[in-house]
Amino acid sequence: MTGVSSMRRLRGGIVGGGRGAFIGAVHRIAAELDGQSTVVAGALSSDPATARASAAAWGLARSYDTYQEMARAEAARSDGIEYVIVATPNHLHLPVARAFIECGIHVICDKPLALNAAEGEQFERLVTGGKPLFALTHPYSAYPTIRQARDMVAAGQLGQLRKVLVEYVQDWLMEPLENTGNKQAEWRSDPARSGDGGCIGDIGTHAAHLLEFVAGTRIEALCADLSSFVPGRRLDDDANMLLRLEGGGKGTLVCSQIACGEENHIRLRVYGSKGALDWSQLDANTLVHKPAGAPWQLLRTSAPYMGADARAGTRTPGGHPEGYLEAFANLYREFIEDVRRVQAGLPPRRNYPGVAEGVRGLRFIAAAVASSRNDSRWTRV
Amino acid sequence: MTGVSSMRRLRGGIVGGGRGAFIGAVHRIAAELDGQSTVVAGALSSDPATARASAAAWGLARSYDTYQEMARAEAARSDGIEYVIVATPNHLHLPVARAFIECGIHVICDKPLALNAAEGEQFERLVTGGKPLFALTHPYSAYPTIRQARDMVAAGQLGQLRKVLVEYVQDWLMEPLENTGNKQAEWRSDPARSGDGGCIGDIGTHAAHLLEFVAGTRIEALCADLSSFVPGRRLDDDANMLLRLEGGGKGTLVCSQIACGEENHIRLRVYGSKGALDWSQLDANTLVHKPAGAPWQLLRTSAPYMGADARAGTRTPGGHPEGYLEAFANLYREFIEDVRRVQAGLPPRRNYPGVAEGVRGLRFIAAAVASSRNDSRWTRV
Amino acid sequence: MTGVSSMRRLRGGIVGGGRGAFIGAVHRIAAELDGQSTVVAGALSSDPATARASAAAWGLARSYDTYQEMARAEAARSDGIEYVIVATPNHLHLPVARAFIECGIHVICDKPLALNAAEGEQFERLVTGGKPLFALTHPYSAYPTIRQARDMVAAGQLGQLRKVLVEYVQDWLMEPLENTGNKQAEWRSDPARSGDGGCIGDIGTHAAHLLEFVAGTRIEALCADLSSFVPGRRLDDDANMLLRLEGGGKGTLVCSQIACGEENHIRLRVYGSKGALDWSQLDANTLVHKPAGAPWQLLRTSAPYMGADARAGTRTPGGHPEGYLEAFANLYREFIEDVRRVQAGLPPRRNYPGVAEGVRGLRFIAAAVASSRNDSRWTRV
Amino acid sequence: MTGVSSMRRLRGGIVGGGRGAFIGAVHRIAAELDGQSTVVAGALSSDPATARASAAAWGLARSYDTYQEMARAEAARSDGIEYVIVATPNHLHLPVARAFIECGIHVICDKPLALNAAEGEQFERLVTGGKPLFALTHPYSAYPTIRQARDMVAAGQLGQLRKVLVEYVQDWLMEPLENTGNKQAEWRSDPARSGDGGCIGDIGTHAAHLLEFVAGTRIEALCADLSSFVPGRRLDDDANMLLRLEGGGKGTLVCSQIACGEENHIRLRVYGSKGALDWSQLDANTLVHKPAGAPWQLLRTSAPYMGADARAGTRTPGGHPEGYLEAFANLYREFIEDVRRVQAGLPPRRNYPGVAEGVRGLRFIAAAVASSRNDSRWTRV
Repeated sequence: MTGVSSMRRLRGGIVGGGRGAFIGAVHRIAAELDGQSTVVAGALSSDPATARASAAAWGLARSYDTYQEMARAEAARSDGIEYVIVATPNHLHLPVARAFIECGIHVICDKPLALNAAEGEQFERLVTGGKPLFALTHPYSAYPTIRQARDMVAAGQLGQLRKVLVEYVQDWLMEPLENTGNKQAEWRSDPARSGDGGCIGDIGTHAAHLLEFVAGTRIEALCADLSSFVPGRRLDDDANMLLRLEGGGKGTLVCSQIACGEENHIRLRVYGSKGALDWSQLDANTLVHKPAGAPWQLLRTSAPYMGADARAGTRTPGGHPEGYLEAFANLYREFIEDVRRVQAGLPPRRNYPGVAEGVRGLRFIAAAVASSRNDSRWTRV
Repeated sequence: MTGVSSMRRLRGGIVGGGRGAFIGAVHRIAAELDGQSTVVAGALSSDPATARASAAAWGLARSYDTYQEMARAEAARSDGIEYVIVATPNHLHLPVARAFIECGIHVICDKPLALNAAEGEQFERLVTGGKPLFALTHPYSAYPTIRQARDMVAAGQLGQLRKVLVEYVQDWLMEPLENTGNKQAEWRSDPARSGDGGCIGDIGTHAAHLLEFVAGTRIEALCADLSSFVPGRRLDDDANMLLRLEGGGKGTLVCSQIACGEENHIRLRVYGSKGALDWSQLDANTLVHKPAGAPWQLLRTSAPYMGADARAGTRTPGGHPEGYLEAFANLYREFIEDVRRVQAGLPPRRNYPGVAEGVRGLRFIAAAVASSRNDSRWTRV
Repeated sequence: MTGVSSMRRLRGGIVGGGRGAFIGAVHRIAAELDGQSTVVAGALSSDPATARASAAAWGLARSYDTYQEMARAEAARSDGIEYVIVATPNHLHLPVARAFIECGIHVICDKPLALNAAEGEQFERLVTGGKPLFALTHPYSAYPTIRQARDMVAAGQLGQLRKVLVEYVQDWLMEPLENTGNKQAEWRSDPARSGDGGCIGDIGTHAAHLLEFVAGTRIEALCADLSSFVPGRRLDDDANMLLRLEGGGKGTLVCSQIACGEENHIRLRVYGSKGALDWSQLDANTLVHKPAGAPWQLLRTSAPYMGADARAGTRTPGGHPEGYLEAFANLYREFIEDVRRVQAGLPPRRNYPGVAEGVRGLRFIAAAVASSRNDSRWTRV
Repeated sequence: MTGVSSMRRLRGGIVGGGRGAFIGAVHRIAAELDGQSTVVAGALSSDPATARASAAAWGLARSYDTYQEMARAEAARSDGIEYVIVATPNHLHLPVARAFIECGIHVICDKPLALNAAEGEQFERLVTGGKPLFALTHPYSAYPTIRQARDMVAAGQLGQLRKVLVEYVQDWLMEPLENTGNKQAEWRSDPARSGDGGCIGDIGTHAAHLLEFVAGTRIEALCADLSSFVPGRRLDDDANMLLRLEGGGKGTLVCSQIACGEENHIRLRVYGSKGALDWSQLDANTLVHKPAGAPWQLLRTSAPYMGADARAGTRTPGGHPEGYLEAFANLYREFIEDVRRVQAGLPPRRNYPGVAEGVRGLRFIAAAVASSRNDSRWTRV
C-alpha cells in the first residue's frame, strides 16, 4: 500500500427526510454522489423510533431524537458534521437552520425557504453576514442543459427577451390524499406547516426560480388565479398566472398538482428576438435551440460544444442519460466546494441558490396569493 | 363503356385567395380532395390582372374582376356555382358573403367571421333563417384525432373538467414584415382590414374554438394581456390569457406570432378528474390519452378503436400520415354533404362551425381587447 | 365574366382500385390534388357491378367492364383519357400497361412492376423507346424531406457513405387475414398474383428504392432471411437482410408485415464520414441531420433553408403538416408536367421512378428470394 | 445522540478506472449510490503516479501500485475490502479477478469477460463452485423499464416471439482516435488488449445480452458482416448481423462505433404474436408497449402499475428522470445484497449477470468473427 493524503470526504448531517419521506434519500444520494461527502448523523424524524430506524437503514453513525440535541452535540465533537441538510416540512426550515447556524454549521435547505415573507426576512437576517454558508435546493437549475440555457441567454444568443412560458404540472394530489394518512400530502395541504402556498409553494417556486435563473431577469408583476379543485383542500392545488418581467418580457406560469396523468413535468420556453430555447424535464438531457430562420438544434448534455458550466456538471459521456439525482448532486458539488473553500479561508463562490432566492420565492408566493384574492389584479412581486 | 349515373361533382367558386395568398390554394385543394366538388369560377383578387392569372393557373373555367359581378353572373347561369368560398381579408367577409347569400348561393368562409362583434351580429341576421348554408373554416377541429377528443370528453371519459391549456404560436411576424410589401402581413396588421384583433383574431380564435369544441363548454371570462412586440405594429402580435370556463374549469390561452422558431404550433391539453387529453399539430395523427393511474395511451388516426366521427374523416390506413389539407377537406366534405342534402330537400346536419361559432370568436376578440385595455381585468366573453 | 384561357386539367383514367381497395382512392386524390388533372374514366374492378358502383361513387364520367375495352374506347375518343393509372394486383400490371401503351396512352403504375424479373424485362422492352411515358409510384421518395435528404447526400454533406439502416414494418398481416375473405390479403399472399415476393415485394421494394434514391448508390449484394410466420402463408411476411452497397457502404434492410403494433413505419438512416441523416414517416415533415461534432438539426418541410426540390413539393407554409397523400401527389405533379411537356413536343424530365427502378425492384426481390433459399448466402442484386 | 446499530457500509476496492478512464468513476458512483458500500482502496492505474493521484482525488484510504499487492494486502487486513471492482482493459480481467478470488474477495467485473472464449472457459472454472461471488456489469439490463420488459415477456404478454431488432450505435471512433494518444481508443482497437472483437466486444455484447435478457431466449445462430471503416484500424468498428433465436424468432443486431451523430444509442424491439415492446436509452424511463389491436402504451419508471422488480430498482417518484448511473447502481445493489447474504451464510440470489453470461458474450464474439470471415455464413453461437 502507498499512503494517500487524499481529499477527505466531508461529514454531513440531515434533519428530516426519514422513512416515508421522498426527499430525504434524494438529499443523501446527491450529497454523496461525487464521493466528496458522507452523511454520518441525522435527526431523521420527529418520531424517535422512525428516526432511529431510518438512520440504521442508511448506515448513519449517529442518530438524534431532536435537531436541537443534534446541533449541540455535533458542534461539540471534533469529528462532528460540517454541514447539515434541512429536509423537514416548511415550518421547521427556519428553526432548524437557526439551530445549526448558531452552532457554526453550514446549512443546505429545501425550498420554499419559510412559511411566509416575514419569516423569510428573519431568515435573511439570520444568514446574511454570518459565516456559515446557506444553500437552497432548487435542483432543476443545476441540470447541465439548464446551465447551458442560462449561459446562452446571458451571452445574448436569444436577443431581447419577449416571451416566457413556464409550467410545472403533477397529478399526485388529484384526490384528497391528505385525508388518507399520507404524511407528504398532510403537511403540504396544511397552512400551519406549509405556509400560504400549496401547489405554488411546493412547485410553483421551482418554476419561478427556473424562469428567473435562465432568463436572467425577474418577474416584475403577476396576475394569478389560484384554485383548490379537490373539495375540502385548504391550500391551492392549481394555479395559472400572467407574468410581466423586468425588461419588458411577458408570459405565463402554470402549475398544478391535479393535472391528471402528469408525473412531474417541468418545462421552460424562452423566446427572444433572435432565438428561443425549450427545455423539458421529460427529456432533460436535451436543450432545444430555435434560432431565427434556421433549423432547430438539439443541444445535448456532455457534448463537446456545451459550455464550461454545463460540462462541469456532467459525469458520463454523451448518450448515457443523467437524471434528477445527478442534477441535485450538482448543487451539492458546488455547495461542498464552497464548504472546502471556507474551511481553507477562501471566499465562497456561491454558485447555487441561497437566501436571496429563497426570499424571492416567498415574495412570489405572497404576490400570487394576494393577486388571486384580489380578483387576479396585477400585483408586484 | 357502361353509362354511369354517377355522383355529380358540385360546382364551387372562390373569392380571394389568388396568387401570393396562402389560403386560397388550401381551400381549393380541400374543396376538391374527395372528388365531390370542383372549383370552376373565381374572383381571385381585387387586382383584375392577378385575378385572371391566378384563375388561369388553377384551370378555372370563369374568372371575374369583382365578386359582385361573379355573384350575379353565376346565379344567372344554369351551370353556375352552387357554393362560394370566401378567402378574402377579414373586412370583406361580410359584404362578399352577403352578395352570394342574397343570390341564394351557399357560403363557406374563412375566420374570423368579421371585423368586430357588431358586424358579426349583422352577419348572424343575414345568415340565420336564410336558406343558403354558411360554414366557417376552423380546420383544426376537423382532425380525426380532435373529433375523437371531443367525443371522449362528451362521453365523460375525462370526468369533470378541471384545467385546459391551449396555445397557438408562430413566428412569421417576428420582424415588421408589414413594412416590406408582404401583403399577408399588411392586411393582418391593419385594423381597418383585420378588425380589432391581430394575433388573437388570426390564430387566437382558432385556439379558442378548438378549446370550446373539444371541451364541450365555453369560455366564461378571461384576463388578457395583449402585446405588440414589434415596434410600430398597430395590432397585437402576442397574447397571454387566463381563462375561466362555464362549469368550473380554468386554464390559459397563449397565442403569438413572434414566438421565434415556432412554425405553426397549435396544442391543446384538457385535464379532468378521471383522465386527460393532449394533442399537438406537430404530431397531428396522435391523440395522447392520460387516464388516471394508468399508462399514457397513444390513439392514432385510422386505428380500429377510434370512434365513428374520427374514422369518417380518415382516408388512408393507419400509419400513412394525414395532415392539414386532409383536416381542411373534412370540413368541406361535411359542408358539401349538407349542400347535397339541401338540394335534395333534406335538413342539413351542420356538423361544422357556422355563424354562431363566428360570432363567438368575435366576442372572444372583443373581450380580450377590452380586458387588456382594462389592466387585464376579468372580462366576460 | 372574363374569358380564361386557362391551364386545362388533363383527363386521367384508372384500372383497378375500386371499392375495398385501399390504393385506388389514394391514386385518385393524388392525381387531382393540384388541380392539374381529373380522373374521368375507369375499369375499377374485375367485377363489373363493383366497377360501376365504384365509378359512380367517385363521379367518373365513364365506367368500363374491362381494361381492354377501356383502352380501345378511350384511345378512340377525342376527349379520351390522356394517361391511365394502374392500381391492380401485381400480375395485371404488365397486361394492363401494355394495353394502354399500345394505344399511345401514358401510364402511371403501382409497384412492384411485375411478377418477376423476366416479366420486368418484357416490361422494359415495352416501355423503353416508346412514346408513352411510364411512371412507377414509389411515393415515399416524393416527400419533400426525402428530396432534401437525397440532395444533401448528392452534395457531399455526409461525406463518404458508410452505413445505411432501412426498415419498413407493419402488422396488418400478423393474423392469417387471407383466409377471412380480405381481398387485399388474398392476392398479396398468392404467388400467382403477387409474384415471388410477399412482404419483400409489397413493402421491401419501397424500402430498397428509398435507400437507393437517397443514398445515390445501389445495393450490390445482400444476405436475406425470409420468413412466413403465419402458418400456412405461401409468401414471406417478414425479412431481414444484410446489405453491401456499391461504393463500400454496408447496412441492413428489415421489412415485416407481422411486426405487432406497427402501422406503416418506414424509416431510413444514412451514415457518412461527415454527417448522417435520419428520417421516419412517423414524423414525415422532419429530416434529422446529424453533422459530425455538432448538434442534431431538425430540417422541416417548407422551411426557407430547404432546397429547391424539397420546396417545389410543398403546398403549405411551415408547421401545417403534409402527409402521405401530398407526397403521392408530388409524383403525380411531376408525371403530369411531363405529360404536358410531351404533348407540347418537349422532352420529358422523368423526375420520378420509371421502368428502370421497377426492374431494379424485381431484381431485388429475386436476389432476396435466392439468397434466402440458399442459406442466406451473399447474392448479387 | 442515540446509539445506532446500523447497516454497515461494505468496503469495496477497485482495479483500473483511474484518471482518463470513463468507466472508473461510473463504478464508484454506482457502488456507493445507495449508501450500502464505500470504495476505500484501489490500484487505479498501471502507472503508479496516476494511480495515486486518482486515489487521492476520490478520497480513497489506500492506493496500491499493483493489483497483486492490493489483493494480498487487503486480504490480510481486518478492515480490508470485501469486494473488488475490475475496471481494467479486457486482457486484465482474468488475471485481476483470479488474484482477488484466490484471496477470497468477491469480484464485480466489466464486460466482456475476457479476451476470447478459451480464456472465458478458464474464467468459468475459476469462478464456478468457488465461494467468492462474480458479477458482470451489463448495466442496461438493470434499468427498471428493462426489468419490466423481461417480466412482461416471461409472463407471456407478447405471445410467441417472432422478431427482435436490437441496435447499439455510437460515433466516438469515427476518426482514428487510437492514433492520437486516446488511451480508451488505443486499447479498444488493440487485439492484444481487447480480444478478437472491437465494436462487437465493446458494445455488441451489451446488445446481445440485452436481447437475450429481455427475450428470455438465446441467439442460436448468426450471419455477421464486420467492418473496419476507419483505415488502419485493426478491429471491427461496425457490424451488421442476422439472428436466429432458439424457439423460432428471427431478427437483426446492429452495432457501430462509426455511426456519425450517435452518442450512445442502444435500442431493443421485441415483437410477438400478441404484443410488442420498444425501448431506447434515449428515453430510458419509458417502455413502449404495443398490444395487438390497441393503442400503444407508455409504461414509465416508478409508476404504480410497474412490476415488483422494476419498482425495486427505482429511487424517485415518477417523473424525476433516472439515468445510466442509477441503472448501474441497480446491479451494485443486487451484488452487494448478495455479498451480505454470503457473509450471513445465506445462499446468494444471483439476480445479475455472472460468468455464464460472460462466456456467452465471448461465444457471441467468436461466432460473429467466424461468420464474418466465412463470407457471413450462418454460424452457431
